[in-house]
Amino acid sequence: MALIVQKYGGSSVANAERIKRVAERIVDTRKAGNEVVVVVSAMGDTTDELLDLASQVSPIPAGRELDMLLTAGERISMALLAMAINNLGYEARSYTGSQAGVLTTSTHGRARIIDVTPGRIRAALDEGAIAIVAGFQGVSQDTKDITTLGRGGSDTTAVALAAALHSDVCEIYTDVDGIFTADPRVAKNARHIKQITYEEMLELAACGAKVLHLRSVEYARRFSLPIHVRSSYSTANGTMVTGSMEDLSVEQALITGVAHDSSEAKITIVGVPDQPGVAARIFQTVAAAETNIDMIVQNVSTESTGRTDISFTLPKTDGTRAKAALERIKSSVDYKDVLFDDHIGKVSLIGAGMRSNPGVAAQLFAALAEAGVNIEMISTSEIRVSVVCRDTDLDVAVRAIHDAFELGGDEEAVVYAGTGR
Amino acid sequence: MALIVQKYGGSSVANAERIKRVAERIVDTRKAGNEVVVVVSAMGDTTDELLDLASQVSPIPAGRELDMLLTAGERISMALLAMAINNLGYEARSYTGSQAGVLTTSTHGRARIIDVTPGRIRAALDEGAIAIVAGFQGVSQDTKDITTLGRGGSDTTAVALAAALHSDVCEIYTDVDGIFTADPRVAKNARHIKQITYEEMLELAACGAKVLHLRSVEYARRFSLPIHVRSSYSTANGTMVTGSMEDLSVEQALITGVAHDSSEAKITIVGVPDQPGVAARIFQTVAAAETNIDMIVQNVSTESTGRTDISFTLPKTDGTRAKAALERIKSSVDYKDVLFDDHIGKVSLIGAGMRSNPGVAAQLFAALAEAGVNIEMISTSEIRVSVVCRDTDLDVAVRAIHDAFELGGDEEAVVYAGTGR
Repeated sequence: MALIVQKYGGSSVANAERIKRVAERIVDTRKAGNEVVVVVSAMGDTTDELLDLASQVSPIPAGRELDMLLTAGERISMALLAMAINNLGYEARSYTGSQAGVLTTSTHGRARIIDVTPGRIRAALDEGAIAIVAGFQGVSQDTKDITTLGRGGSDTTAVALAAALHSDVCEIYTDVDGIFTADPRVAKNARHIKQITYEEMLELAACGAKVLHLRSVEYARRFSLPIHVRSSYSTANGTMVTGSMEDLSVEQALITGVAHDSSEAKITIVGVPDQPGVAARIFQTVAAAETNIDMIVQNVSTESTGRTDISFTLPKTDGTRAKAALERIKSSVDYKDVLFDDHIGKVSLIGAGMRSNPGVAAQLFAALAEAGVNIEMISTSEIRVSVVCRDTDLDVAVRAIHDAFELGGDEEAVVYAGTGR
Repeated sequence: MALIVQKYGGSSVANAERIKRVAERIVDTRKAGNEVVVVVSAMGDTTDELLDLASQVSPIPAGRELDMLLTAGERISMALLAMAINNLGYEARSYTGSQAGVLTTSTHGRARIIDVTPGRIRAALDEGAIAIVAGFQGVSQDTKDITTLGRGGSDTTAVALAAALHSDVCEIYTDVDGIFTADPRVAKNARHIKQITYEEMLELAACGAKVLHLRSVEYARRFSLPIHVRSSYSTANGTMVTGSMEDLSVEQALITGVAHDSSEAKITIVGVPDQPGVAARIFQTVAAAETNIDMIVQNVSTESTGRTDISFTLPKTDGTRAKAALERIKSSVDYKDVLFDDHIGKVSLIGAGMRSNPGVAAQLFAALAEAGVNIEMISTSEIRVSVVCRDTDLDVAVRAIHDAFELGGDEEAVVYAGTGR
């Protein structure tokens, strides 16, 4: 008898019909002789509706109260899912994050899981019940206040709970059949990936692949817990995220896939004095504005002026805040201008095999040149090459790279309906 | 500095505008130098919407899961109310029933409060914050599962919390200015009552006055906690529920007021054998069908047949269930027929002073006779006379009794908009 943790996102439980379909799937897993724990997100648009209500009573809602409000979302979906399972003749009990023992830091809106003490979940399983757990939420170890985990929180709940329960696998249900060599909506011949290492998955997630959130993969790697990413619309096998790069054989594929991201913007600070400490001052300011910086590029200083330009990318949504913070230090830092550009796109090539193959980056640049795509920024890691281009060139760039490294298959990838999570 | 517990019902927090208005009222109480604890119900129609969702996934939702679902309602309203107060520059923190220490029995859907351990609420007040507590909900002392208190639950939460915190007064906000000598929508000249004893309020509540729920008054009496029933639409003083009949002076008013109730139905069992044990058998059967019986009348046996008729009243909503249960014992009890009549109304006259005045019932019957109202059933207590009549006669009966005992004032009573709770 295996213990399986399944996670269903908001679109999988968006209405009563879908909840009943998910209930059937869960019961099938139970009937096959498994112990089942299910982590569930809030129904479809619930979170947006609650945020809208909050904005009507307060322009800047307190984090503690916003977390209290938003956690009503999973409470609704998990209770309905438990009812639907009960209605199929199997016992199901729903548990809040707090009841399931999800202990977090006290940073409201983006708390991190410190520990999971799933005593009540274990007891429910021992009594033969299916346990339904609210994703995305926990309780602060210090203040005992209710917290939320921020973006991708339900994936992290599922993985953390699976690790704490010594589960055999954590199944993440989504609207695609798993991980592909590129986004099938952009590259029609994208190939399905059967297995991928944690490190490659981390790079893919960080580079814009929406299927799994970064933190959940980090958590799974730490506990060597396999994640099975699969579709809630089919019973086909999805992608297993498991194994480390060190375990890979030499015959492994050179390249795993292409990821792209159009959610970032670029800020360029023009005419920065080329002196020690100035860059530190700038990025301390941006960090204090709670901005997540991705790539940073500093051009070589022009000798005649003693000044240089610094560019960095960041989430579009952080742009206004970061720009305002930088403008407040303009006179003290003595830079000339700050430019905001939200028409950029980022394309990344990921593959554990490229560690031992120095020609990958050059081949990628050549493919983009041939496709007429101009490169604005470059960033590399041991197993990744990322470039920034115009957002209008992004799809062309994805296809050019995907073709250049012969990642495509012979068939068109199947894309299911659904709005993602 | 006083400690005041305020309770606002669902219609008082039905939308963002009303939540902001309630927030101002709470802040005014705080500004006046009081410590404030607020108990709040779910917004307007939230509970009905959640029940509708539940019915879509399961015809008979499990009680545990239904309670988990419904308690999302207060979670939303209390977080929004706390945000609205924060936005006025005062600190407010919301707490679920469980967090506020509301410990209950484990009967889902109609749990009873066993104890209240408001340690976190006391701590929040000590730190200068306003505490917002979810009404209607608690946590089972035995199973640690979330429970709801059933009808009128938020009133009971407020009173129980006020008692546990040794509050000076529990203010129940509603859509009328307090308790009147009759329903102002029926008797236009109904007079506002400044003060009423717990015993009289209990009889009024049991006889159909919707303003306060029975259980909350019982709780207040046990702890000698004054309840101030007042309007959320005005700052006028409402009705104080306080003091015992034993404390009343001899000059007290003879009669307090008239209550009426059109939510009951009547079942008559025709031709019941007039033998010991038969009535017990009948009412055990009805009780087993979870029916709340109100009045019971048994006619004198007709000597020639050895049979009698038994009538009782019960909530209309329990009618089908009770009738079905009775029909299952028809042959074993050997009665002739069971009749269901949901066109009855009940009118009651309540007054602590009637204990020492035996003429009240006769005067009431005379007033009804003069108004042409036929009496179908009669029931009395030490401080109450109730009669059942046709539902079409109910308003006439209320006015006739109200006038006969000269309860009316010179002005028309003010009735505010609002749907009650």
